[in-house]
Amino acid sequence: MKTLSDNAISDDITINRNIKCYGSSEVLSELKGKDTLFLCVMATTKTSNIPGITGAGATPELTEYTPAADLELVICGEPKCLPEIPQTVIDGAAAPTPAVITKASLELADIPILVVDAGAGIKPDIPYIKLGNGPGEDVRTGNAVPNAREIFEKGVLLGKTLSKLTDHLVIGESTPAGTTTALGVLTALGYNAKQKVSGSMPENPHDLKYGAVREGLKAAGYGEGETVEDALRAVEIVGDPTIPAVAGIVMGSSIPIVLAGGTQMTAVCSVIKGINPEFDFSNLCIATTIFVAEDETADINQLTRQVADINIFAVDPEFEKSSVPGLKSYLDGSVKEGVGAGGAMMAALLKDIPMDNIRLKIEDLCDKIF
Amino acid sequence: MKTLSDNAISDDITINRNIKCYGSSEVLSELKGKDTLFLCVMATTKTSNIPGITGAGATPELTEYTPAADLELVICGEPKCLPEIPQTVIDGAAAPTPAVITKASLELADIPILVVDAGAGIKPDIPYIKLGNGPGEDVRTGNAVPNAREIFEKGVLLGKTLSKLTDHLVIGESTPAGTTTALGVLTALGYNAKQKVSGSMPENPHDLKYGAVREGLKAAGYGEGETVEDALRAVEIVGDPTIPAVAGIVMGSSIPIVLAGGTQMTAVCSVIKGINPEFDFSNLCIATTIFVAEDETADINQLTRQVADINIFAVDPEFEKSSVPGLKSYLDGSVKEGVGAGGAMMAALLKDIPMDNIRLKIEDLCDKIF
Repeated sequence: MKTLSDNAISDDITINRNIKCYGSSEVLSELKGKDTLFLCVMATTKTSNIPGITGAGATPELTEYTPAADLELVICGEPKCLPEIPQTVIDGAAAPTPAVITKASLELADIPILVVDAGAGIKPDIPYIKLGNGPGEDVRTGNAVPNAREIFEKGVLLGKTLSKLTDHLVIGESTPAGTTTALGVLTALGYNAKQKVSGSMPENPHDLKYGAVREGLKAAGYGEGETVEDALRAVEIVGDPTIPAVAGIVMGSSIPIVLAGGTQMTAVCSVIKGINPEFDFSNLCIATTIFVAEDETADINQLTRQVADINIFAVDPEFEKSSVPGLKSYLDGSVKEGVGAGGAMMAALLKDIPMDNIRLKIEDLCDKIF
Repeated sequence: MKTLSDNAISDDITINRNIKCYGSSEVLSELKGKDTLFLCVMATTKTSNIPGITGAGATPELTEYTPAADLELVICGEPKCLPEIPQTVIDGAAAPTPAVITKASLELADIPILVVDAGAGIKPDIPYIKLGNGPGEDVRTGNAVPNAREIFEKGVLLGKTLSKLTDHLVIGESTPAGTTTALGVLTALGYNAKQKVSGSMPENPHDLKYGAVREGLKAAGYGEGETVEDALRAVEIVGDPTIPAVAGIVMGSSIPIVLAGGTQMTAVCSVIKGINPEFDFSNLCIATTIFVAEDETADINQLTRQVADINIFAVDPEFEKSSVPGLKSYLDGSVKEGVGAGGAMMAALLKDIPMDNIRLKIEDLCDKIF
């Protein structure tokens, strides 16, 4: 499969040699030196309990704790809701949660973070902005996010307020099984997303994900190839609570936005376009990690281009230089992204924090925490 | 009783003729033209169900809806949780909620508002930052806020984050029966607060408030004249959830803070001083309305001076110039303050919005809403 790197349009080392640009790098010059607010939108969905669908938790049941534990780790330095730190375990080897990447980046660059709850099953023991309620349902029910419209509308209100508080927003997410729900929304809206969403494991269970999505669409009365006209209806059927929350925040805001995530953020863009086909995406970009961009089991570039001409940036933390084994497993396709890790690193780089310092801080956190 | 006006130290018309200064007006020059974030911390407590203790709701039971309805009104222009707008009804005459003053001021000055839930029984249908859980108990139980420490600690975390997002914070509150819980905390900490807290009705039911407080202290094992050493323990016994939330935000923050409220904010200061006797109050002031400052049934000046040398500002909206009967009832002692109305007006005045414009906008909102 062609990967994002093959499509690199510019590799603009004048900005930063650790940021690969797919599209125009102009926006980065505009964001440099500006005030930044990092948001992390969290949710869980019963979809993550499907065995084998996600690596974001030691067991399917524990995935419900992952967003809360991750954000407690970022804010407090330790998870409070779980005795164990979230790790992605593949073949017995544990990769540290991307929350350490986010924490290291935001702390070094002194970037404030606000947590937004779109619908996490387990709530973190920290202050957070409440937009939703409980977790999303299993997409196979065809009734995944009954309150999608309400979450979206509150997101719009929040975006309006936050636009008055900072120069630009970086929005990350923590949503186990979020690539499955992204596949769901993209498929429902008629995009060719099959085998194109990324995942948290080296082996991407595309058939399992697509099977779950098809089952949900069928349960809601949509046959193969039939599309859902209303974007928020698509979320209601086969999405997750994070998607309408981020879409609402983006549509309510009036400042530049970096969507910090992988193919899940493509699904957010598809919903925005569905709600407003004339939406101006020039003030928005996607920032992710090189691990998503070079994921041979997915294609964020091709997927995003179907939605709109959106600039994508991929940040390379050069984990091959690290001596921490858990970080090396990112190079083998574990974890890849999450908690806005790629966007958080980009925000720190734009504040002139060298990547070597970010990586050292990540290693330091790994030593302390794991 | 001597009122605040009798103690006015400066009446500095160079700042603004609608702001009376009790203390130094220097801080106002520092705040002028700075970025402002308005927070409103809300909570309810079963104390407000004691008949006759508060006017913040048409019936004792409806006081549980007041904070949610007030903040929905500020953010959305209408209450969503209640069919009726909160009004203070005294002898059949309805005074509009102070939420209209806050809304008018913030909108004219384009000041962002974030809502913080310290423990409201009814939650507003808007985005809000969650610090606490359910409502406080009746102070008479002597177990009013079991989770006061947790709320305080989350407040500290929030204060740290918000300090990175703005130049200064204006913190209002919406807490029916909040002067009773303020009396509780001040009394528990050994201050002479009897007959000194303000209230939302022309007749201030001092004996009812003090009786409830004494009953709570007695239930917790404290006899008349015995003081509680630990400030957060005092909140646990006879406080409300708003007090530890605001104290935490103040103690976590590193920027100038305006406490926008009446004698309830004096209780917050007493808790801060109890936690850190060396706390530097020079970066903090209290802003309220002229109706609290000139309340002949209370004495915010004398009460606050017992805690520390804190500058107090009182804003006069000149409702005597208004033709709206509901606003005139503020002149007779109804409502007086709430939802940070005094601080919101001061913030708008500091952004060069003339008071006449604020009053016209308030009248306009009253016309539309009531």
